[in-house]
Amino acid sequence: MDGKTSSKTAGKPIRCRAAIVRKAGEPLVIEEVIVAPPKSREVRIKIICTSLCHSDVTFWKLQHPPAIFPRILGHEAMGVVESVGEGVHEVVEGDTVIPIFLPDCGECTDCLSAKSNLCSKLPFSVSPYMDRDKTSRFTDINGETLYHFLFVSSFSEYTVVDIAHVTKIDPQTPPNRACLLSCGVTTGVGAAWKTANVEVGTTVAIFGLGAIGLAVAEGARLCGAKRIIGVDVNQDKFEIGKKFGVTDFINSRDCGDKTVSEVIMEMTGEGADYCFECVGLSSLVHEAYASCRKGWGKTVVLGVDQPGAKLTFSSFEVLHSGKSLVGSLFGGIKPKSDIPILIKRYMDQELQLDEFVTHEVDFEDINKAFDLLLEGKSLRCVIWMKK
Amino acid sequence: MDGKTSSKTAGKPIRCRAAIVRKAGEPLVIEEVIVAPPKSREVRIKIICTSLCHSDVTFWKLQHPPAIFPRILGHEAMGVVESVGEGVHEVVEGDTVIPIFLPDCGECTDCLSAKSNLCSKLPFSVSPYMDRDKTSRFTDINGETLYHFLFVSSFSEYTVVDIAHVTKIDPQTPPNRACLLSCGVTTGVGAAWKTANVEVGTTVAIFGLGAIGLAVAEGARLCGAKRIIGVDVNQDKFEIGKKFGVTDFINSRDCGDKTVSEVIMEMTGEGADYCFECVGLSSLVHEAYASCRKGWGKTVVLGVDQPGAKLTFSSFEVLHSGKSLVGSLFGGIKPKSDIPILIKRYMDQELQLDEFVTHEVDFEDINKAFDLLLEGKSLRCVIWMKK
Repeated sequence: MDGKTSSKTAGKPIRCRAAIVRKAGEPLVIEEVIVAPPKSREVRIKIICTSLCHSDVTFWKLQHPPAIFPRILGHEAMGVVESVGEGVHEVVEGDTVIPIFLPDCGECTDCLSAKSNLCSKLPFSVSPYMDRDKTSRFTDINGETLYHFLFVSSFSEYTVVDIAHVTKIDPQTPPNRACLLSCGVTTGVGAAWKTANVEVGTTVAIFGLGAIGLAVAEGARLCGAKRIIGVDVNQDKFEIGKKFGVTDFINSRDCGDKTVSEVIMEMTGEGADYCFECVGLSSLVHEAYASCRKGWGKTVVLGVDQPGAKLTFSSFEVLHSGKSLVGSLFGGIKPKSDIPILIKRYMDQELQLDEFVTHEVDFEDINKAFDLLLEGKSLRCVIWMKK
Repeated sequence: MDGKTSSKTAGKPIRCRAAIVRKAGEPLVIEEVIVAPPKSREVRIKIICTSLCHSDVTFWKLQHPPAIFPRILGHEAMGVVESVGEGVHEVVEGDTVIPIFLPDCGECTDCLSAKSNLCSKLPFSVSPYMDRDKTSRFTDINGETLYHFLFVSSFSEYTVVDIAHVTKIDPQTPPNRACLLSCGVTTGVGAAWKTANVEVGTTVAIFGLGAIGLAVAEGARLCGAKRIIGVDVNQDKFEIGKKFGVTDFINSRDCGDKTVSEVIMEMTGEGADYCFECVGLSSLVHEAYASCRKGWGKTVVLGVDQPGAKLTFSSFEVLHSGKSLVGSLFGGIKPKSDIPILIKRYMDQELQLDEFVTHEVDFEDINKAFDLLLEGKSLRCVIWMKK
């Protein structure tokens, strides 16, 4: 069905291929699925390419709620608008877009404020449905409902996304770079740029040099940080990190009797101006906080810990240190206004995206993308829907 | 001895009266003491008046270290320079000053930065000695050492203070208003003004309407906050709070099945833009955090909890809420540069200080000031050294 013009497909269901998770942790199966037409304020998108993020893997492995199957995962993608539902004026057929898990309704207090990226009208959740009417647009060929993921479900040739989750971008952007800005890379770059607002000449420490941590480094480099200290258990990350501005490296397994924060204090004298926790471990958030400079040090929490995990701080330390702690969802980025800025900075050769793409596979080989990420071999593997 | 000109007393010990705590929790005893001349970079100050702060009471009652006796308490005061030690050029004999527990050396990275008020050269501590040479300037008439308190010890007709702890002020300032800016009131006003940087038209919630909480209200009012919600267990605090801009009141004992944060959410719809914890209870910090608006809410920790107390947050909530948490020592105020601004705002009738002074007593009646604070009857009781 795909490849047809919207004049023929608009308003009708589309039959196309999607990679489905039928059971937690089992290989994805590419099946024919039916993608319903977009309802009011929805957009049907032909996915050009998608990339694999750790959150896809987390929800692929997850055995218990909020896990739900059969489900179409995928939330980092780039595509072209195939058709739009009623009330959609922001994009038209043929527009180049990226779907984004975080909504930007453009109407609520948060979306109208420069200070928040947490839409109040369509609060972020891990709902398996469309954002507004809480139903699915996907069925398999037997009519069984297939669940959405993060309001995107990009492991499908076509998907339906609420207009609040769609950002129009420059069509000249290479698809396999644009898709990166859909989640992980934007989260890291944004955390340095928007949440921390890293100042020129400062020192940054990053706990965990996965794609998000490296994107924090890239964001900090763009902001003019002087020293960027990467912390990881994998020594190879230093060489990779250097590409994104990492100047110093601490292998947290080689600290002997010292804590990482003690090593950072020794290296910097006073601590880092900004610390970013990108792993999702409460103990590391504590180390990050301890590594921050008194008086103005800021700890930014980016990593997703286990449900129920707690962060504990000494009341005395909080009061007397003058340090601050802040969480950052999607790096504080406002999808519709900030992502076009990042795209422009990429096109102007300021923001570095190329180095994040370590692998590219065809849609048929989507399980290989999972293997590469699980084996720690890839930063981002781009999955092309068509060869 | 007091009342003589410095030409006669400079360089010599001064014998004068001081209120001494000889044993934890026992009434202060006014005795004759010997105040040594100021050493290098020190200033000897004739105290005009002093006011009683909760920290004095805490250290008066404290049975175990860092408690130490015999000690001269007092750290909110106003006085006149009697003589200066070598190397002091910032003030001269006759200057009107307020001594301040928090140092401002003017030389270290922190003191030179607008972002920090936590001097690196003379870090804040509860040392019983002078800041630099770790000795005392007080002895009783039997030659026994009397310990300092918070580098000020203002419950004495004369005291010796390091120049880093001295701020010169406009001599026209009424002494019984100036002394308030030495600690508590400045902490509260500064927390709103400097640490939180309260924006015009915003909503503020204050947990605990003691002098510091009321000073936060006053600071928030000056910053243009639209709504100031006070939370206290004492219903009378609403009427008092109104004088400082409190617009709404929650008696935390009258919330029924609801938590205070639930009540604040109901009142505001979205939460307060800024929450201030002024009591020193971990559970209240948690309530303050929960009362903050997602996206940009800021929780400021001002209250001093028990040693070893922990603050615990849900990792998920920190990550997904976009809220921030920050501690504020002395309200983020830089003593030498910011206090003169507060004095000017008082003299210009913008900053309200008069209402904080609920009682005034003579030095001989200093124990009455303790009783009034312990009974919750006073906000600030000013103690005049001379009638």
